[in-house]
Amino acid sequence: MSPVAVTAVDSCSGPNLKAFHDVLPVDPCIAGTLPGEDVYDGDDSDDTLDSEHGDLPSLTSNGRAGKERCENGVFQSSRWTDTESSTNPHCNVSVNGHPSTVENGNKKFPDPLSSLDISAQSDTNGENGIFILGRNMQYDCLSITEPEIDDESTGDKEAYMASVLARYRRMLVDRTRYHLGYPYNLDFDYGALAQLQHFSINNLGDPFIESNYGVHSRQFEVGVLDWFARLWEIEKEDYWGYITNCGTEGNLHGILLGREVLPDGVLYASCESHYSVFKAARMYRMDVVKVDTLVSGEIDCADLKRKLEERKDKPAILNVNIGTTVKGAVDDLDLVIATLRETGFTEERFFIHCDGALFGLMMPFVQKAPKVTFKKPIGSVSVSGHKFVGCPMPCGVQITRMEHINALSRNVEYLASRDATIMGSRNGHAPIFLWYTLNRKGYRGFQKEVQRCLRNAHYLKERLREAGFGVMLNVLSSTVVFERPQEEAFVRKWQLACQGDIAHAVVMPSVTVQKLDTFVDELIESRARCFKDGQVIVPCIANVIGEENCACTQHRQH
Amino acid sequence: MSPVAVTAVDSCSGPNLKAFHDVLPVDPCIAGTLPGEDVYDGDDSDDTLDSEHGDLPSLTSNGRAGKERCENGVFQSSRWTDTESSTNPHCNVSVNGHPSTVENGNKKFPDPLSSLDISAQSDTNGENGIFILGRNMQYDCLSITEPEIDDESTGDKEAYMASVLARYRRMLVDRTRYHLGYPYNLDFDYGALAQLQHFSINNLGDPFIESNYGVHSRQFEVGVLDWFARLWEIEKEDYWGYITNCGTEGNLHGILLGREVLPDGVLYASCESHYSVFKAARMYRMDVVKVDTLVSGEIDCADLKRKLEERKDKPAILNVNIGTTVKGAVDDLDLVIATLRETGFTEERFFIHCDGALFGLMMPFVQKAPKVTFKKPIGSVSVSGHKFVGCPMPCGVQITRMEHINALSRNVEYLASRDATIMGSRNGHAPIFLWYTLNRKGYRGFQKEVQRCLRNAHYLKERLREAGFGVMLNVLSSTVVFERPQEEAFVRKWQLACQGDIAHAVVMPSVTVQKLDTFVDELIESRARCFKDGQVIVPCIANVIGEENCACTQHRQH
Repeated sequence: MSPVAVTAVDSCSGPNLKAFHDVLPVDPCIAGTLPGEDVYDGDDSDDTLDSEHGDLPSLTSNGRAGKERCENGVFQSSRWTDTESSTNPHCNVSVNGHPSTVENGNKKFPDPLSSLDISAQSDTNGENGIFILGRNMQYDCLSITEPEIDDESTGDKEAYMASVLARYRRMLVDRTRYHLGYPYNLDFDYGALAQLQHFSINNLGDPFIESNYGVHSRQFEVGVLDWFARLWEIEKEDYWGYITNCGTEGNLHGILLGREVLPDGVLYASCESHYSVFKAARMYRMDVVKVDTLVSGEIDCADLKRKLEERKDKPAILNVNIGTTVKGAVDDLDLVIATLRETGFTEERFFIHCDGALFGLMMPFVQKAPKVTFKKPIGSVSVSGHKFVGCPMPCGVQITRMEHINALSRNVEYLASRDATIMGSRNGHAPIFLWYTLNRKGYRGFQKEVQRCLRNAHYLKERLREAGFGVMLNVLSSTVVFERPQEEAFVRKWQLACQGDIAHAVVMPSVTVQKLDTFVDELIESRARCFKDGQVIVPCIANVIGEENCACTQHRQH
Repeated sequence: MSPVAVTAVDSCSGPNLKAFHDVLPVDPCIAGTLPGEDVYDGDDSDDTLDSEHGDLPSLTSNGRAGKERCENGVFQSSRWTDTESSTNPHCNVSVNGHPSTVENGNKKFPDPLSSLDISAQSDTNGENGIFILGRNMQYDCLSITEPEIDDESTGDKEAYMASVLARYRRMLVDRTRYHLGYPYNLDFDYGALAQLQHFSINNLGDPFIESNYGVHSRQFEVGVLDWFARLWEIEKEDYWGYITNCGTEGNLHGILLGREVLPDGVLYASCESHYSVFKAARMYRMDVVKVDTLVSGEIDCADLKRKLEERKDKPAILNVNIGTTVKGAVDDLDLVIATLRETGFTEERFFIHCDGALFGLMMPFVQKAPKVTFKKPIGSVSVSGHKFVGCPMPCGVQITRMEHINALSRNVEYLASRDATIMGSRNGHAPIFLWYTLNRKGYRGFQKEVQRCLRNAHYLKERLREAGFGVMLNVLSSTVVFERPQEEAFVRKWQLACQGDIAHAVVMPSVTVQKLDTFVDELIESRARCFKDGQVIVPCIANVIGEENCACTQHRQH
């Protein structure tokens, strides 16, 4: 392994950072810990990093990611080749050769601190000045140690693990409190389901074909699927679907369906589509055409038309975004269908997969929103279960037409049974979580929550605009896009997903007005720290969010 | 939809049933419920099925899967087209137009019974005589109902859901108790982790690249990966890996790696490989060559050699089974590598993925077992986490060489970050479960458990042999293969996975000698019931398990 170069930026580095893609790992800032009240100081070992630059914050209180150098603003880590630190490049548990451990009785265990603190809230004052952007760098891991022979009698190991878990839990509470960047509804109470945690529930295979493995939850799964089928207006005898592991699995499945139905098909997707769409094309060895987007993030149907016309001889498989990841833009399904027809594509020559990861569940409850419905010529719809619904583990729902799944299954001649899902073993807990929430909230409950989210998103947009930030909010969307905060510590504290010069906050049911107020107040403070002379310079991001939304000197005057 | 034909067989139908593939849904016997003490009888509605044949058991006490007919031993369901029953073909909650409901106060909710009882232990006496094998047939689902306006004040809905969950839990306890067919270790206690259930833990993206989403468990995940890397003898700086959703994801990933490293490669896999291997080939549009197996289930390297020679001009991607699904046969990795070399394939022209779903974790602890190690020229190894380790949700571990993942990632030019996993969002709970168990048990703990499983598997084999059953147990394996029990109710009670004329029991740590004794005793009783004149006829299954293991009249005499 050659050393991996990583970039260090000043905490007030401005928005010209490397672009990252949507929900993929974004800006891993792995330096700086908060020496706050929650942080157990382990032992008396040196809390500062033994580096060639005294002003670099330590990777953790007690560990670091190999030998680090900062030259000309480029921060380099020789993590993979450093022999001075731990020999484990993933797992850095030593500083200057001293393993970072805590003594527990006569035994030494890895210090849970050295792994947990890295995720703790960082120093929002940013006074240390430098934060590390790393790829392939790793906070410390929680090594697994071989139990001692007498562990059962001493209870030392149990005590160690209990302390790790208790501290981890505290960190989760903290990280859950400050969270705006990812579209996950963190507001749920599944206490009633705790009794089921101890069963190995597995819905292996098809939801509609019972397996001999008796510990499953298909009766819940089918209940959930029926609910979504009703939402998207397809008769129960006409649909097939299953509960997936995440939004990506829904896209992988939908696009595979398209390819099996139209083996020669070319995949069309806007360049703001989720990365899993392009991953699918690569996995499936399909030709893919990237279509331009409007400033809003919507697919540009004029460009789509041009590109369709160039490839008229081949069927078209389309990914339509019901909410893009970054800007929350909703592709105009009706216009896409009209464009296909105008270009001469009849229904048997196209297949539309709707990636509704987030908004697939919100749109049906928004008045005036164009409908996602199987009454239109679409082939499949997927939605994430851990986003708007809220679920402790990632999951999703995929619904398609029975005729398509039969086309897929017919082709799998080597199986005596039907193998129509991407995964084999399937988490049987997720359907129960979804079933529980859908039953409690119902359509009416979701409608109320969607309306509140849209209202709160508008509130956030207005507050940011008043404070002089460039900000954009698409209609039908609760994703508020704004100029990327300059303090990386702030980005990290609020877990904002960033791309290029912009960041976004997704207003989920767990996001209250109070939380938004705190967020905006802290953002204003953060900005003030970056311009110590009081002269705030607003960056121009008109090319990303449009002139009318930009707050830079030039565009504000318009 | 046209009606789906399903086959009905007498409970003592003999072993000539339709073959099913390994862990895919096997023989869904969805008729017959046990009117036992655990079964709440709901209301006084008619418990018998209104069918054209009075001797058919009902699909559930209160529901059925549409209109059913039994003609010439072929049982047909017109579920998809029947209008007399519920209009919901997935969800059968009516009998003769009367919805199957329970009254709760003034409200009606779907009867939880009608969904749950179908999974309860069936009548093992089989006196009703007929069990239904169905494809596309569905036990009742648990419909989601819209909450009433006053639900919060009356508490009716909460009470209804609590009753559903309590009954479901009781069913799970029962189904967990009788379980031998699937290689899932059901013996675990994760009480200490219950405190974490309420967090939306998501390790989206790469385990070694931190995301801005703070509620993750990468520190646990990397600890687990390091443990497996040590087990399979690869240095920490040389490996990359992640925790997957299941064994299938490991295979999909390993084979994708192979294809990206060797884009022209032909995939070779024995015909007893897991179905996900062939699914991968299809998804990835790869040429695949099925290789014959020996009677033991191992890959036949003579046939492999012939087939490699025919395609010498193209690189080879091999799936090597470290434990086949049905027979628990371990492909001889050393012989596979020797065969490749003899045929002129140098290391840069082949890629080996080891599918160690079950035995990948057991083999290292078996003395004399050929080692799965990265010191041999293998490209990747995957193992399931919910099998030998035991975990309440499906998961797996995939480990590969850093050089391969870099080859994969380099190609994904459209991503600013590295997208090296199949799924995007990833369950962050699974790593904590694995971390907890590995820490508690350690290598020594697993070694003890593996030894006990192998001992108990031998015990089961001997008991079956003594009782006159055809039985096979591969060395290095705890999967006991035997003639398929003739009573489907027995198969279902013990959740045996069957394929053609054979069934298997997988002896996991949760399987005790006492449980095996009960199983064998009940199997003997079950067989006796099928031959009422006392003349047991042992079927010949020599072609599947070998003459030396067959107990039929002809082979027993040898």
